[in-house]
Amino acid sequence: MYFGSDNSSPAHPSILNALIAANDGYTSGYGNEEAMNNVTKKIRDLFEAPNASVYLVTTGTAANSLALATLTKPWETIFCHRHSHIEEDECGAPEFYTNGAKLTLVDGKNAKICPKNLLDAINLYSQKEVHNIQNGSLSITNVTEFGTIYSLDEMKTLTDIAKAHNLKTHLDGARFANAMIALDCTPAELTWKSGIDVVSFGATKNGCLGVEAVVFFNPEMAWEFELRRKRGGHLLSKHRMLSAQMQGYLKDDLWIGLARKANSECQKLFSKIEKNPNIKIIHPPEANLIFATIPTKLHDKLISNGARYNHWSSQMSPLDVPENETKIRLACSWCTTELEINKLLELFNY
Amino acid sequence: MYFGSDNSSPAHPSILNALIAANDGYTSGYGNEEAMNNVTKKIRDLFEAPNASVYLVTTGTAANSLALATLTKPWETIFCHRHSHIEEDECGAPEFYTNGAKLTLVDGKNAKICPKNLLDAINLYSQKEVHNIQNGSLSITNVTEFGTIYSLDEMKTLTDIAKAHNLKTHLDGARFANAMIALDCTPAELTWKSGIDVVSFGATKNGCLGVEAVVFFNPEMAWEFELRRKRGGHLLSKHRMLSAQMQGYLKDDLWIGLARKANSECQKLFSKIEKNPNIKIIHPPEANLIFATIPTKLHDKLISNGARYNHWSSQMSPLDVPENETKIRLACSWCTTELEINKLLELFNY
Amino acid sequence: MYFGSDNSSPAHPSILNALIAANDGYTSGYGNEEAMNNVTKKIRDLFEAPNASVYLVTTGTAANSLALATLTKPWETIFCHRHSHIEEDECGAPEFYTNGAKLTLVDGKNAKICPKNLLDAINLYSQKEVHNIQNGSLSITNVTEFGTIYSLDEMKTLTDIAKAHNLKTHLDGARFANAMIALDCTPAELTWKSGIDVVSFGATKNGCLGVEAVVFFNPEMAWEFELRRKRGGHLLSKHRMLSAQMQGYLKDDLWIGLARKANSECQKLFSKIEKNPNIKIIHPPEANLIFATIPTKLHDKLISNGARYNHWSSQMSPLDVPENETKIRLACSWCTTELEINKLLELFNY
Amino acid sequence: MYFGSDNSSPAHPSILNALIAANDGYTSGYGNEEAMNNVTKKIRDLFEAPNASVYLVTTGTAANSLALATLTKPWETIFCHRHSHIEEDECGAPEFYTNGAKLTLVDGKNAKICPKNLLDAINLYSQKEVHNIQNGSLSITNVTEFGTIYSLDEMKTLTDIAKAHNLKTHLDGARFANAMIALDCTPAELTWKSGIDVVSFGATKNGCLGVEAVVFFNPEMAWEFELRRKRGGHLLSKHRMLSAQMQGYLKDDLWIGLARKANSECQKLFSKIEKNPNIKIIHPPEANLIFATIPTKLHDKLISNGARYNHWSSQMSPLDVPENETKIRLACSWCTTELEINKLLELFNY
Repeated sequence: MYFGSDNSSPAHPSILNALIAANDGYTSGYGNEEAMNNVTKKIRDLFEAPNASVYLVTTGTAANSLALATLTKPWETIFCHRHSHIEEDECGAPEFYTNGAKLTLVDGKNAKICPKNLLDAINLYSQKEVHNIQNGSLSITNVTEFGTIYSLDEMKTLTDIAKAHNLKTHLDGARFANAMIALDCTPAELTWKSGIDVVSFGATKNGCLGVEAVVFFNPEMAWEFELRRKRGGHLLSKHRMLSAQMQGYLKDDLWIGLARKANSECQKLFSKIEKNPNIKIIHPPEANLIFATIPTKLHDKLISNGARYNHWSSQMSPLDVPENETKIRLACSWCTTELEINKLLELFNY
Repeated sequence: MYFGSDNSSPAHPSILNALIAANDGYTSGYGNEEAMNNVTKKIRDLFEAPNASVYLVTTGTAANSLALATLTKPWETIFCHRHSHIEEDECGAPEFYTNGAKLTLVDGKNAKICPKNLLDAINLYSQKEVHNIQNGSLSITNVTEFGTIYSLDEMKTLTDIAKAHNLKTHLDGARFANAMIALDCTPAELTWKSGIDVVSFGATKNGCLGVEAVVFFNPEMAWEFELRRKRGGHLLSKHRMLSAQMQGYLKDDLWIGLARKANSECQKLFSKIEKNPNIKIIHPPEANLIFATIPTKLHDKLISNGARYNHWSSQMSPLDVPENETKIRLACSWCTTELEINKLLELFNY
Repeated sequence: MYFGSDNSSPAHPSILNALIAANDGYTSGYGNEEAMNNVTKKIRDLFEAPNASVYLVTTGTAANSLALATLTKPWETIFCHRHSHIEEDECGAPEFYTNGAKLTLVDGKNAKICPKNLLDAINLYSQKEVHNIQNGSLSITNVTEFGTIYSLDEMKTLTDIAKAHNLKTHLDGARFANAMIALDCTPAELTWKSGIDVVSFGATKNGCLGVEAVVFFNPEMAWEFELRRKRGGHLLSKHRMLSAQMQGYLKDDLWIGLARKANSECQKLFSKIEKNPNIKIIHPPEANLIFATIPTKLHDKLISNGARYNHWSSQMSPLDVPENETKIRLACSWCTTELEINKLLELFNY
Repeated sequence: MYFGSDNSSPAHPSILNALIAANDGYTSGYGNEEAMNNVTKKIRDLFEAPNASVYLVTTGTAANSLALATLTKPWETIFCHRHSHIEEDECGAPEFYTNGAKLTLVDGKNAKICPKNLLDAINLYSQKEVHNIQNGSLSITNVTEFGTIYSLDEMKTLTDIAKAHNLKTHLDGARFANAMIALDCTPAELTWKSGIDVVSFGATKNGCLGVEAVVFFNPEMAWEFELRRKRGGHLLSKHRMLSAQMQGYLKDDLWIGLARKANSECQKLFSKIEKNPNIKIIHPPEANLIFATIPTKLHDKLISNGARYNHWSSQMSPLDVPENETKIRLACSWCTTELEINKLLELFNY
């Protein structure tokens, strides 16, 4: 019964098979290998973006930070949600890679930036001059950190505000495939058609071992990104380790199937617990993550019966967890099984 | 009728006289001149801190940023008020000098950090591990950016929280003398006796041309600061330009007299307008600054009659200025005259 | 006939098998997985360093830069050879990760730092004060970029000079195993017994896909390194991708066998060409790399017959390549075959 | 008998008078004051550059570093002489402000970059790709650190090479006026007519207290410079402290007279000692600085008779000072007197 981070799941066998297939004989490295050409072509096709520049790195933190550093000058600010990965879980990597750009935290329910708050935050800086940090970029996360989804319209509303103020736009797509399934849309719709300039296209959480693509829809920024990636130590010599994974991931729509599986298992679980009076759902679980508070007694029972998931006690998080309750996050991944779900449901309903 | 920034006032004649006196013949530079020895001795005496390290720079931004960079690692955070100079008016200098430390904004009324909010903010990070930015330092501003004053007890409450969580503490004392007069306390009480590790001891706003001291009560950090100052281009060769100013500033309690004058003129003005129904005082004006909203019509009259001060229309600052009103800041400095005050009052009361 | 970069060779099958074995079921990530515990234990044993801290990253550039940033303050200098990887092939990554430390280039024959030159360079800075960048660390590369080897005595001479001047010491061991075989010594002898504080222990070039260890013999520096690694985006979530490779690499002395193979094939090749009058050996080929100049006509013949290796024309490198000659680098890796060697020899000798 | 740094001399009385005159009443700050408008206009006239952007800072290190950071990306290199101020005397400020750009040291006699060496250095990087730091800018110093002068032709040769390789060009003019006098040329000839994009126009050494101008001949880079200056803490609030000095400095050709005085006293001194067999002139003293080696006995006599100047023993600088000799630097400034020169000559000749 594993519902911990989708990062704890293994890679899909097809990914390993792709690695094995790629590990054959000598080949150029540093992204000059044939496999990378294939990946670039495939991603350009998928995103309907024939001029896009495509790069691979090993972590979401690297993808986000390198992308944002390319979009944002040191004296500019990145607008993002208070509960975004770049703010809360990257140990200041965006500040490091940008050489000190500021993250301006914008609030909004369910980890989604509220357009009015964004506008207020932008206006705050827009009125100032040399004394103030300057407006730079907007970073949106979809699926959000709280498992909710921006609709395409909601994304467009935010990127329209950004564009009207000359902000560049970034999508943290660590769970890109899960968002796409939830929205039933195309990659292009989820990105440039929604006003996104650069996307971190995550694959690690959805069945790979460790690979994320950064896709620039404006190739002008590409060379600077390449230098930043190298300078950050993120250009792999035996680069086929990354390109092979991505090739396997995209082949025969594997990535879509895996995300569909994760989301549907999650929805199945949700449909069975949403009316359980013991379980208070905190955010609408629109993709593969459920956030809820449950009685600590129930939590203890779950744990002692072998359930595994992230959790926060009221002591750890006094601001949003009442006493005697526990906040839990249930994550479904590509390898969550019906069996696991049923066992967990049994424990819940008992 | 000038009530604009205290930065727009000239230097006191004694400061210029000190410069002239110091400009005599050859002397060592880079802080090795005799005048600097005198300044160090004088500041150590004033602060009852015989081991303090004392440095001079030309701007408050340099003083704050260099001090904070010495206290805070790149992967740490500086807790400060949302409306602090380091957040709003230094174009990201603290982020630049620290190589990307984060400023965590803490709220509180009247630009004063609320202890409970500080504790919550600290606890937020304390629960995390390598993924999160680490706790680093606390920066307090007294006089605050809104003209209010932390009592010594209020400062101690904050620094006690800081010390309990291993945070270093910094005081932005751009208006140090004004705070000291308002609190009727000693320099030691306003700093290390209140738990402050390093102070930016401002002099520019209070009668100098351009000099701020940074005083470290813990000399262990001094050498690193010296290297950072040099590396930031802030070590002056003809350093007597700074030490002479500071010598003149501290001589015969000039600095205390100047701040007393600024504060008392401000209090005089305040006592005459606080009951004026046209004037809504926004923050308690406890030092030399008054923030208020007035009808825009009144504002227009003031301006057209020659009054000068900072102001924000409801358009510029829609969040806190109602329509048809104007937010104004009246700053008194060492050279504000009774005449100016009376002329302004006349316009107000007419 | 592939004698290009050892980075172009595939991974050894055992490495892939280790990956497959590790890809089983859910596991903690971020280095908290069981496989990483095993790696740490194994490396501590191998290096006879029970307190060593061990970290994995994906590239040599990351390993070197993160290690050097932990050893060196921004206002300090790293002494290294003019022809070192950190100077010539990392696009300024050490400067980026250290926030601007300087690389002081020290000369010496065959890419080996000359002790006298090192001493002179150190003394140059030692006489200065705040105006000058400060002494920080020494970085040695063994196997050098030119395929030569520092003897243990030579290393000790350099690290003794470093220690006498309070410099920290780093070994760039991108080809650690090849150096160890060439020197017929233990890992401990090649590192801390020779005065090394931190080593980049390379595995990618010697049969892995992409993994390098950073080993700190002084655990005090470890926590800072962990934060720097995370902040640099180099902490993998599905960290088993790295620990599994390293486990496979170290198991049953695989790594030693692979390096022995690479070195011995190289020595075989060298013994057959060193007296060839057409071939001028530039540096003593002491590990798995041969640098030589050959007539461009011969070079053209090699290429057109399918030989592959790095090469520089006199136009590209006018300072060290005479006209009508070509500088070549022949690299042997773990998968170089006798057949390839013989075919190349035939072309040479024809 | 003071021949130490020109930084140890006082300010010329006219500079102080200008400060006193400017210290009258309220005025805008941050460079928006009337005095700064006058300075900009005056400098544009002097340099025959009606579109130039002009900025003031307090130190040469700030001027150089901020200018170079505006010209050079973090992943680029600045070509400069091994014996340049930015390399030897700024504690890594250029690396700090550029966020880690590399200084590539180019050799050449008498602290002057040799064109062939520059070309070789540029070509070295030009052949590489993403793995290597990129070509960025060229920084020339005139008067050089060794008191020699580049002719206008020599400057043009270097900047032509730079332009041919897309390098931006910077002139460190800490002793700009002394160079201009030595070359008998116009400010325009010494800068943009010789291919210079940005100049650090020093005034501190030549009679001011602490002010240096940075002049951009291409105004496109100006806004970025303004943000960098603010972010570096180098934008003064009571900016008239700087603009008044510069106004006084430029008024009635004061600056030209002061440099002429310094140079001519130096030439007088030189003409009297150049044939003294005890004195070995090291570099042609073409402006206001003389470098020489003298017997340590003579040095001791000079010191004990009250002469003051910079000096290096053979112990301090074993590479270029023979035993029993002392290397000395005699600097003449605007306030060097005939009397001092004569007294020194007496000691020499006795």
